[in-house]
Amino acid sequence: MRSARVAELLRQMTPAEKLGQLQIVFRPQLEDAAALVRGGLGSVFWPQSAAASNALQREAVENTRLGIPILIGLDVIHGQRTIAPVPLGQAASFDPGMVEELARTAAREARSGGVNWTFSPMVDVSRDPRWGRVVEGFGEDVHLNAVMGAAMVRGYQGPDLAAPGTIAATAKHYVAYGQPEGGRDYNTVDVSSHRLRNVFLEPFRAAVDAGVAAVMASFNTVSGVPMHINRDLLTGVLKDEWGFGGLVVGDADGVANLLPHRVAETLDEAVRMAYAAGLDIEMGGSPTTSGWDAASLDPARLDDAVARVLGVKEALGLFAQPYVDEAAELVEPTAESRAQARLAAGRSAVLLRNDGTLPVARPARILLTGPYATSTDHLGAWTQAFSARSTSIADALRERPDVEVVVSEGVSFFGDRSDDVDAVATAALESDVVVVCVGEPSSLSGEAASRSDLRLPGRQADLIRAIAGTGIPFVVVLCNGRPLVVADWIDQSPSVLEVWHGGTEAPAAIVDLLFGDQEPAGRLPMSFPRAVGQVPVHYAHENTGRPATVRGAMTLESVDVVLEGPANVAEKYTSKYLDLDLGPQFSFGHGSGYASFSYGSPRVSAAEIGPDGAVALEVDVTNTSARSGDEVVQVYVEDLVASIAPPVRRLVAFERRTLDAGETATFTFSIGAEQLGFRLADGSLLVEPGVFVLHVGGALDRTQPVALRVR
Amino acid sequence: MRSARVAELLRQMTPAEKLGQLQIVFRPQLEDAAALVRGGLGSVFWPQSAAASNALQREAVENTRLGIPILIGLDVIHGQRTIAPVPLGQAASFDPGMVEELARTAAREARSGGVNWTFSPMVDVSRDPRWGRVVEGFGEDVHLNAVMGAAMVRGYQGPDLAAPGTIAATAKHYVAYGQPEGGRDYNTVDVSSHRLRNVFLEPFRAAVDAGVAAVMASFNTVSGVPMHINRDLLTGVLKDEWGFGGLVVGDADGVANLLPHRVAETLDEAVRMAYAAGLDIEMGGSPTTSGWDAASLDPARLDDAVARVLGVKEALGLFAQPYVDEAAELVEPTAESRAQARLAAGRSAVLLRNDGTLPVARPARILLTGPYATSTDHLGAWTQAFSARSTSIADALRERPDVEVVVSEGVSFFGDRSDDVDAVATAALESDVVVVCVGEPSSLSGEAASRSDLRLPGRQADLIRAIAGTGIPFVVVLCNGRPLVVADWIDQSPSVLEVWHGGTEAPAAIVDLLFGDQEPAGRLPMSFPRAVGQVPVHYAHENTGRPATVRGAMTLESVDVVLEGPANVAEKYTSKYLDLDLGPQFSFGHGSGYASFSYGSPRVSAAEIGPDGAVALEVDVTNTSARSGDEVVQVYVEDLVASIAPPVRRLVAFERRTLDAGETATFTFSIGAEQLGFRLADGSLLVEPGVFVLHVGGALDRTQPVALRVR
Repeated sequence: MRSARVAELLRQMTPAEKLGQLQIVFRPQLEDAAALVRGGLGSVFWPQSAAASNALQREAVENTRLGIPILIGLDVIHGQRTIAPVPLGQAASFDPGMVEELARTAAREARSGGVNWTFSPMVDVSRDPRWGRVVEGFGEDVHLNAVMGAAMVRGYQGPDLAAPGTIAATAKHYVAYGQPEGGRDYNTVDVSSHRLRNVFLEPFRAAVDAGVAAVMASFNTVSGVPMHINRDLLTGVLKDEWGFGGLVVGDADGVANLLPHRVAETLDEAVRMAYAAGLDIEMGGSPTTSGWDAASLDPARLDDAVARVLGVKEALGLFAQPYVDEAAELVEPTAESRAQARLAAGRSAVLLRNDGTLPVARPARILLTGPYATSTDHLGAWTQAFSARSTSIADALRERPDVEVVVSEGVSFFGDRSDDVDAVATAALESDVVVVCVGEPSSLSGEAASRSDLRLPGRQADLIRAIAGTGIPFVVVLCNGRPLVVADWIDQSPSVLEVWHGGTEAPAAIVDLLFGDQEPAGRLPMSFPRAVGQVPVHYAHENTGRPATVRGAMTLESVDVVLEGPANVAEKYTSKYLDLDLGPQFSFGHGSGYASFSYGSPRVSAAEIGPDGAVALEVDVTNTSARSGDEVVQVYVEDLVASIAPPVRRLVAFERRTLDAGETATFTFSIGAEQLGFRLADGSLLVEPGVFVLHVGGALDRTQPVALRVR
Repeated sequence: MRSARVAELLRQMTPAEKLGQLQIVFRPQLEDAAALVRGGLGSVFWPQSAAASNALQREAVENTRLGIPILIGLDVIHGQRTIAPVPLGQAASFDPGMVEELARTAAREARSGGVNWTFSPMVDVSRDPRWGRVVEGFGEDVHLNAVMGAAMVRGYQGPDLAAPGTIAATAKHYVAYGQPEGGRDYNTVDVSSHRLRNVFLEPFRAAVDAGVAAVMASFNTVSGVPMHINRDLLTGVLKDEWGFGGLVVGDADGVANLLPHRVAETLDEAVRMAYAAGLDIEMGGSPTTSGWDAASLDPARLDDAVARVLGVKEALGLFAQPYVDEAAELVEPTAESRAQARLAAGRSAVLLRNDGTLPVARPARILLTGPYATSTDHLGAWTQAFSARSTSIADALRERPDVEVVVSEGVSFFGDRSDDVDAVATAALESDVVVVCVGEPSSLSGEAASRSDLRLPGRQADLIRAIAGTGIPFVVVLCNGRPLVVADWIDQSPSVLEVWHGGTEAPAAIVDLLFGDQEPAGRLPMSFPRAVGQVPVHYAHENTGRPATVRGAMTLESVDVVLEGPANVAEKYTSKYLDLDLGPQFSFGHGSGYASFSYGSPRVSAAEIGPDGAVALEVDVTNTSARSGDEVVQVYVEDLVASIAPPVRRLVAFERRTLDAGETATFTFSIGAEQLGFRLADGSLLVEPGVFVLHVGGALDRTQPVALRVR
């Protein structure tokens, strides 16, 4: 359904003008970009100010034959000026409303400067924490990715993309980019059609349902075919099956990368293959640099691609108003955006463990140690030079009343030296409580930042153990962009607060959390493995035919099957490691808070439903503590028997809500039969009859069941 | 094509008699097994002697209505009495003739005791060394698995299965069992149809082509469907597409395991689903214990299954001669089998590094240390109580002339104590050379023996480093059942000999190798990772669109794309880890020997061939050393451009040959166009026109190219 404007433009455009619409080119110098736009280029990266953006739009509108405005793209990932927590942290909030509002703020700031298109959200289900890009997404769960991705799309785009302060969103990276072999970024992805349908594609379907304007093709192969030329998935599933009407953009140099992929001999061939497969905008400049002739493409496909690009421009209202008000450009955070970011950083935090040291009582003499005591590296991966900086935890702590603060980092992030550890331990003896601020600098996560070792870098674990050895109460504050292996210090650390990379206002929020001015009631969006050798470990794994109930053991004894028979060694032959306890260190959904809650028995409005039916699931939750606090009620489904091996548990609903001290509230979820089914290879949903158990609770290890039968 | 006998039996059999043929049940007590056979059970596990085997056959032949002889199965994996190197070690020999001969010996020993069916070879391509069962197979490469699996089938079965001394072979585990998620045995396998076809299925195709009598279904799921009920693969691909005429056997309790898999509600249902999908023999006793009624199965499928079982019995000649000569039972190794095993253990060894300390010059004062100095744990996983034991390296070394031997283990396999390390280091100073015998006891590999940590267990690395610190020349002898992580000691160890678990004659062979009486000219069948966090790392990976040429680095600096532009940070955005060098510690195909070789330029008999053509590839190799030695010439293909992302290299041919000092020999390989193609999802072979480069040499990092064009 092309608009009259788009149809008319298509009628008028030359092949070269059409080709111009199908590219976005990175040119950091304004004059270079202006020349390209004058020459017909339809999309550019943001030239870093409203004035420059307007200048480029003016080139397009006034100095080209057809006057088509341009898309101005930028990786606005978790904020433009005001930086919000990294997306993995936002996922930990289990608060899609918050995610939507943060995206709205990012869109408002970005659009005020002329940006009208962001390459976000990333909805790649990610189960390998070695992959640094887990920080940019919403973790291991399909449903959480779908809900958070859709919320972020709504936040960026608003109810009307033509309204002020909106930008076009891009769901990325289509598809299965989140499972690179070995966790090495850009590596081969090998995935079955079953998992593709039920894990990786679902969040994209949700983004499309939320009206996302663009989808980005991923760098990886699927079944050996690079996504930039994967017609079955770009055109077959996304456009034809799902009816996606927006545009498909390539990832940076993704078309040129087809040559090292060894699927194209020349750049011209690569470009043709990519557009033919369903790519609409090439990112990086391959067609122009290669001098490729758009006429070699099927004319209908060419027009379809151009119509999709023009359609997004039209939806953004660019034909009516290509310019932004330069006087209203937002170049720094406002008080409101700071307050919002601070609240978000607090709501993203996860209380991994607590022996009561948290919240810290005042007055207190506090020793602040660890490299994150004074580091300002809180913005996280995928922020840029123009983002509003953060201060440090030390800066924020010193502003609070009733505390004496001593700061001594003890160790650096990477150094091999731990000489100062003893001095810090001695200093600890003079304090009431020690706050050990450790983690992973933001350069270690994000794109092209895979790690083979997931422990704290440098000598940070030594510092924690030294503090633990003093006997002084202490808190570990973890600042990081991925699940870490914490086995070498976690058992000695009874109070651990995971704060991710929390953004511009992270230090203030961390201090809020330390003193209980905010509630750290987030939940892990991704499991923390016990060891890197346990990866991937994720809660929604299949049961296997031989699930383990006890851990394995290193032993010199071999089992002699013939002599002893299998019966007495049954637990030998189960799925586990000889050298590791079962399950992750901390599971998806793990976390508590400062308040505590009790649950009534969950109840369903009907014990049985038809294949199109739905029930209301209700559970009463009481805040049994003397303080107000947040609970995240999670609903998991267990399929007792299916025609495929089902996951042991699968999240289908959740809600985070604040309850006052002593308050009882009823949480109500609508559970439809369609949420109990799974996708077949052709994309159809199969809801099988049988019994499903709904597990309801505040974490996977504290749920209560209620059964539901599907006829 | 059923024989007249089979057709006639089918005509006479009752459903219950048919069902009896479709099971193998484990009953360690002879009287229990005899009762089952009398009751119609068609297959049993070996009752541990020729006399007991004959007794069970007599029950079947004389005490059942139709007198059908029984299959007597046993896991004869790498020897029955005389234990050969573990299959992973045999693969390292790159000598399929040796593998065939070892299987022939195993078959002769096993059949002499009444065994007529083994559950071997395992041809699961295995790229995750955490999975303990890698020891039972032939490693990471498709071609090596195919060649070695076929060789082992030929060895067990001989040219005529009815001839004396043969046993029916079983290719296992069908299919993709070698890629369990996280390396945890029995875990979910998720694999694309592309990789399934081109990696996991191919060695099974080769086994079928070699006439394998049986194929074992694997425990894992493929695309969510457990293999025991996977009709598409058991019946569709294996039987219909490939025309496999043998029988499909389940793995132990694989049908009962369908209940925890959550794909069947009752055992009856599981049994029916499995037989319907194409299983012919259930292993574990589910049908009998469940009282399942064979009449509920499609009669044609039931008869097909029974005909396949009877067909194998007929092929084995059991109807003509069900009994073995009890007087001729081989209950211990012969001089010949010992000599063969010793040679095999030597030929399986891989010289990982050598600074010239090897071979050890005599006379010599030798300090032998490490837990493997005195351990007799050389048989490896999947051997049994009746296997011929081995001695220790110390025992074998003391038998040699011109050596003074001091033995001091220093550390145990698992102990945390390293007190004795200093004493050993002191003792080292009194010796000419130290031989450090370390490794992984056999209990740590094999079935249900996954490890999350791949380093040497206990304090063995401390011992190596202490010896290295003495400055005395030393050799590390590695005895293990999987690739290990050796990063914590390898750089200090210039001479390292990988001997796997070498079997009954391993100690003698190891001493042969130490003194140069045998040549350690094997090659790694599986890459050794630099760290467990690098897994999976395998040579035949795809190129990706962003291959790395330099390693990554841990840094505090984030890349600012907008300010700096991507050009100057291009190597940032490549596929690698920040904290690890590129590639594995030792690659597939790695290894050298005591002799050295030079290569002429490889040449092809034609520069271009048609899609059905073939060329002769020739290369002249010269032994440039003063001693006779073995070279393993390897031929890898590189596909320059394909319609799928091709592997960077793929082994298509190899030959190991002994060359005398100074000898030049021409190695000739026939390379057919079909070896340059790949399989599509439907199983058809696609040979694409274009240029292929053949890389020829003694290891992946020392090859020479020659181009070949396919029209």
